[in-house]
Amino acid sequence: MRILVVNPNTTESMTATIADAARGAVSRESEIVAVTSRMGPVSIEGYYDEALAVPGMLAEIASGERNGADAAIIACFDDTGLDAARAMANMPVIGICEAALATAAFLAPRFSVVTTLERSRIPIENLVQRYGMAGRVRVRAADIPVLSLEDPASGAKAKLAHEIRRALDEDRAEAIVLGCAGMADLARAFQDEFGVPVIDGVSAAVKQAEALISLGLKTSKRGAYARPVIKPYVGALSSFAPQAL
Amino acid sequence: MRILVVNPNTTESMTATIADAARGAVSRESEIVAVTSRMGPVSIEGYYDEALAVPGMLAEIASGERNGADAAIIACFDDTGLDAARAMANMPVIGICEAALATAAFLAPRFSVVTTLERSRIPIENLVQRYGMAGRVRVRAADIPVLSLEDPASGAKAKLAHEIRRALDEDRAEAIVLGCAGMADLARAFQDEFGVPVIDGVSAAVKQAEALISLGLKTSKRGAYARPVIKPYVGALSSFAPQAL
Amino acid sequence: MRILVVNPNTTESMTATIADAARGAVSRESEIVAVTSRMGPVSIEGYYDEALAVPGMLAEIASGERNGADAAIIACFDDTGLDAARAMANMPVIGICEAALATAAFLAPRFSVVTTLERSRIPIENLVQRYGMAGRVRVRAADIPVLSLEDPASGAKAKLAHEIRRALDEDRAEAIVLGCAGMADLARAFQDEFGVPVIDGVSAAVKQAEALISLGLKTSKRGAYARPVIKPYVGALSSFAPQAL
Amino acid sequence: MRILVVNPNTTESMTATIADAARGAVSRESEIVAVTSRMGPVSIEGYYDEALAVPGMLAEIASGERNGADAAIIACFDDTGLDAARAMANMPVIGICEAALATAAFLAPRFSVVTTLERSRIPIENLVQRYGMAGRVRVRAADIPVLSLEDPASGAKAKLAHEIRRALDEDRAEAIVLGCAGMADLARAFQDEFGVPVIDGVSAAVKQAEALISLGLKTSKRGAYARPVIKPYVGALSSFAPQAL
Amino acid sequence: MRILVVNPNTTESMTATIADAARGAVSRESEIVAVTSRMGPVSIEGYYDEALAVPGMLAEIASGERNGADAAIIACFDDTGLDAARAMANMPVIGICEAALATAAFLAPRFSVVTTLERSRIPIENLVQRYGMAGRVRVRAADIPVLSLEDPASGAKAKLAHEIRRALDEDRAEAIVLGCAGMADLARAFQDEFGVPVIDGVSAAVKQAEALISLGLKTSKRGAYARPVIKPYVGALSSFAPQAL
Amino acid sequence: MRILVVNPNTTESMTATIADAARGAVSRESEIVAVTSRMGPVSIEGYYDEALAVPGMLAEIASGERNGADAAIIACFDDTGLDAARAMANMPVIGICEAALATAAFLAPRFSVVTTLERSRIPIENLVQRYGMAGRVRVRAADIPVLSLEDPASGAKAKLAHEIRRALDEDRAEAIVLGCAGMADLARAFQDEFGVPVIDGVSAAVKQAEALISLGLKTSKRGAYARPVIKPYVGALSSFAPQAL
Repeated sequence: MRILVVNPNTTESMTATIADAARGAVSRESEIVAVTSRMGPVSIEGYYDEALAVPGMLAEIASGERNGADAAIIACFDDTGLDAARAMANMPVIGICEAALATAAFLAPRFSVVTTLERSRIPIENLVQRYGMAGRVRVRAADIPVLSLEDPASGAKAKLAHEIRRALDEDRAEAIVLGCAGMADLARAFQDEFGVPVIDGVSAAVKQAEALISLGLKTSKRGAYARPVIKPYVGALSSFAPQAL
Repeated sequence: MRILVVNPNTTESMTATIADAARGAVSRESEIVAVTSRMGPVSIEGYYDEALAVPGMLAEIASGERNGADAAIIACFDDTGLDAARAMANMPVIGICEAALATAAFLAPRFSVVTTLERSRIPIENLVQRYGMAGRVRVRAADIPVLSLEDPASGAKAKLAHEIRRALDEDRAEAIVLGCAGMADLARAFQDEFGVPVIDGVSAAVKQAEALISLGLKTSKRGAYARPVIKPYVGALSSFAPQAL
Repeated sequence: MRILVVNPNTTESMTATIADAARGAVSRESEIVAVTSRMGPVSIEGYYDEALAVPGMLAEIASGERNGADAAIIACFDDTGLDAARAMANMPVIGICEAALATAAFLAPRFSVVTTLERSRIPIENLVQRYGMAGRVRVRAADIPVLSLEDPASGAKAKLAHEIRRALDEDRAEAIVLGCAGMADLARAFQDEFGVPVIDGVSAAVKQAEALISLGLKTSKRGAYARPVIKPYVGALSSFAPQAL
Repeated sequence: MRILVVNPNTTESMTATIADAARGAVSRESEIVAVTSRMGPVSIEGYYDEALAVPGMLAEIASGERNGADAAIIACFDDTGLDAARAMANMPVIGICEAALATAAFLAPRFSVVTTLERSRIPIENLVQRYGMAGRVRVRAADIPVLSLEDPASGAKAKLAHEIRRALDEDRAEAIVLGCAGMADLARAFQDEFGVPVIDGVSAAVKQAEALISLGLKTSKRGAYARPVIKPYVGALSSFAPQAL
Repeated sequence: MRILVVNPNTTESMTATIADAARGAVSRESEIVAVTSRMGPVSIEGYYDEALAVPGMLAEIASGERNGADAAIIACFDDTGLDAARAMANMPVIGICEAALATAAFLAPRFSVVTTLERSRIPIENLVQRYGMAGRVRVRAADIPVLSLEDPASGAKAKLAHEIRRALDEDRAEAIVLGCAGMADLARAFQDEFGVPVIDGVSAAVKQAEALISLGLKTSKRGAYARPVIKPYVGALSSFAPQAL
Repeated sequence: MRILVVNPNTTESMTATIADAARGAVSRESEIVAVTSRMGPVSIEGYYDEALAVPGMLAEIASGERNGADAAIIACFDDTGLDAARAMANMPVIGICEAALATAAFLAPRFSVVTTLERSRIPIENLVQRYGMAGRVRVRAADIPVLSLEDPASGAKAKLAHEIRRALDEDRAEAIVLGCAGMADLARAFQDEFGVPVIDGVSAAVKQAEALISLGLKTSKRGAYARPVIKPYVGALSSFAPQAL
């Protein structure tokens, strides 16, 4: 099983963190192929970055599928471009937010997501709504820039811990979901510290990818995820025309 | 008042239809500036086209705002990239789906949207859910490609009329929303034929744009629609970096 | 375009405030006809006042339509009698709560309504639910009687400002809707003070009325808003029999 | 226990049908006082009639409470003016729609309401939503005028039976609620004919009234149902001013 | 009318409290038969106790129906095993949570449930959701073990009063529901103390049982509550096989 | 990894089918321990069977955990006793309905569940609601007894295929979930026949169990799933007292 993990931002050091988490979760039968998007923002903080990260992410998924990937993971907690990727690909495509929420739902009836910036809170709340968990999940922002997670001196980890504590006390959360791919290395330590399940979306998505591959399940090609209609694309994005897929 | 109308697909003849509808709706105090996206698909049929239409659409909105537009309309019924555009712009940005639904809601407690292809039905149902109207709106597809609307010999208009009739009979719809910018010229004729309100999103959005401009209201810059964070963008999309806006 | 604005309470000085707001919003092509109900409560504070304000409001709308009005606005934030008015009239009828919510929804994903008395909070929450915005809107009461808004010495404006501040801080509101027709003159000042969009329902409704008129759209007469059935009405309300409309 | 049953339309023969149903349901310890509204429409068919029936209904409830009633029932399936009546009264006030739905909910997880005219379907659907049962209840109209229920030659009963059959077959209803006070005498016969629980709202409301009285429970006077604020009412409705209650 | 009240825990002293409350609510025409389950936990605190209390409860209901009961009440606020009991019985079966919520809904648009332990909060929130009241009800735990309610020295009553006060202040509750059968004797005193309706589920359920019996209504046997299919049951529970009912 | 699969009905031949499906899905690193409940119904068809299957299922899970299981699966599509099992166990516990729905949700925006008997439809609809998928999933019954799935001559498979066809045509389902553990061997054949993803809950649950184990995640013991309180249990179920766990 070959699992493609796409970091849809263009920061390679963050891809390394993500790849480590993915490799830590993968079974011996599988291989992680971690790639960094080659076009778009260096981090995804809010709707604008999210939209501009999509073409680069789609290009990596198309390329990965051509090269034999069995499933793909979009390693950004906004599940950026997930529907488009599913329409494009035959293999399963998994967002780390939906994988994390689906995983946490097996463990606790109420839980909280802790993400980076306030501007990302509402996009994630909308995903929570879309995935049918609005009644059981709260979303919180720790007020830390995404890339500060890479800097031990930034205090980001302490701010995250503080917000997890508030989630446990104020939301009565029974589990915690880390709401950014850049937090993938922190789950185990926080789980030990707080004594509740702490879910990282990257590793959760790896397990979902393995599950779907081994069950022989692929994205449905009937209806909303039908293959894109063949048609011309023009200008700077002409290489994305469906006939080139 | 200068209202920018962006056709996010790259078909200029369709921009002409849209511009006609917009100009038919605009008050004497306003000016319509209709532009065609310069990169991406020639029509938007499903999630993949939708995602790839976003950068071209955003480029036109950024350019339009620099050139003095007071509001922008995204003239695709999927409300493609609406959140990203709002985060980017200070002026109001309006999607034709949300404008059409908001307008119909003043006229009838239950109504139906009739769109083009089945693959667009679920994306629109998700918008209906997002705009809080899941309990009162049904979405139907007439099984016609978007660009067939430009060809009188395609039979597209008859298929649309057939689906409207079914909406009235089977859904007990009390009004009809036309679910594609390319149908903007058909609303009046269908309204006369069927005797219920028939709403076109392009003209509905023009009126909402005028309303917001004249009320002195702009996109909130607090929270989810805060201005994008300054940061590098790399590769083919580097010109989209927020500092260039 | 002739737009009828009905103040459904019987206080003429409040009609003047409402008319000023309406005239400030109207385009040059339109005329505002502001009328005061001639029967019922001097202010609408809670369900009881609301119900007893309906006949007087309906009488003014019927009279206004006979005299050539093209659309009507019910200028009370409870949207008192809106369904009945729509069933009675052919022209569009707009409630200021629904107009304000629809307008704010174009500008911010989360916002708060600030109204007068606690007893009006739940009726407005029910409207928020009805208009499909329960997930994105909070309602707050500033604990000020409606008519105190007319008395500069009452401290009402300061209490309102205090509650807006709490909405921004505690609800993380990204825009504010003023929840009483009597606040129509305060929107601009609060918008300047707080730096977020502040929406007044009266002016929002004027723009929606203009929009519907210029689009040639009227209340659907199919289903729930079909013309009332001809039948006798008896006693003090016999003049309201549908045959007299 | 004295239970006031108000027929909010002005047709005395229908009050007789309602009173018979109420007396058939009441326990020996209680007394039914059935009154007919003295102002408004002869039948309630849609939103307009509904709104104009409210003042007459409120007058009867106020008078009934002054004369010693312990609870009041509004005997119209639209639950016309229920919130206003609750704000006005100290005693419990019960709508027959809410009583019927609450009763059916103890007996079957899914059920259907069969009402009179199509124009009443959506108002009842909105009540179903308000009472939290949108996921488990369907509403159907048998296309019969309200007063035709009083005419054995009208065929109304056969049309009702036909619609009940469709509810059982098409909706898979497990119980039936009769959606008009004028059907109160038909429940038992339909229950025998169709072999599922058939609920009449009038008798259901009588039992709820008895329950609340004997439990010593009254309408909450905190918040939305607080006593109306003392203030002038003017014109033809001046006698409704709260200080006169 | 013979009403069976089953205490699904095995503590007889608590059955006595429940029986007192039931007898205080019943009309002269009815008889209360209060029984204690003979197998399972001595108190029901959370999902595990709840599940193991079901067989003993079902045995009492089956036995009670054979002995002439006309309706049954499950006197645990978790409504333990309610669906199973309804499928088994022909008579109506009522849970005290659903009866309490249905009763409170006639009196106040917003109210709060105060229960015993935090671990019972989410099960009750799920019931609130199931009964369609998620938008209007809050659930709170006073942090008191169930059986401490029987010990005047435990301080349980004071803790309950403290939590009711918080519900009034923080939730703006307009009525209070006591969320445990063991609180049945406290409703009247709290109602006097706090001046809002306070509802006890046991007495509320008695009135609902009387209502259904006197209306001639029984559990629907069509669909989800159809009689269990005849089949072998094995092992320690073989006596529960449907053919033995 | 040792995964316990409990067949909560007492039919050993059905356990064999379930075990085959589980072993077909498991990775080389894991071991399936399939057990049959020793008390309760031979098949689970509706709420009554479901409730009486719980003690036997709980006994097997408790025993399995004592004997070193790392996760448990409840192999009945009603997710019988899932909350109780989670409160009891430290290891993860997974229902096959929730696993199937979670898995299908990665593949298709709309899908249908096809189950056995009509009486099981509403319990499954309630699970769909609980798992947050009410807006995207339809449930259908093929009208086949559970154990008929074991008899090739019963025609059960043909009836299932017929209902799947209707789901594709009438519901526009984009994937199919098989709604009974006894169908576990049919998924692959139906997937080939119908060309859409067909999900079996048993194998889906095995993959979720492996995922949770390998991620080091266990049931949260904070809040609703806290360990049962130590207390006496009496009568035939006394061996279930929490102190014996």
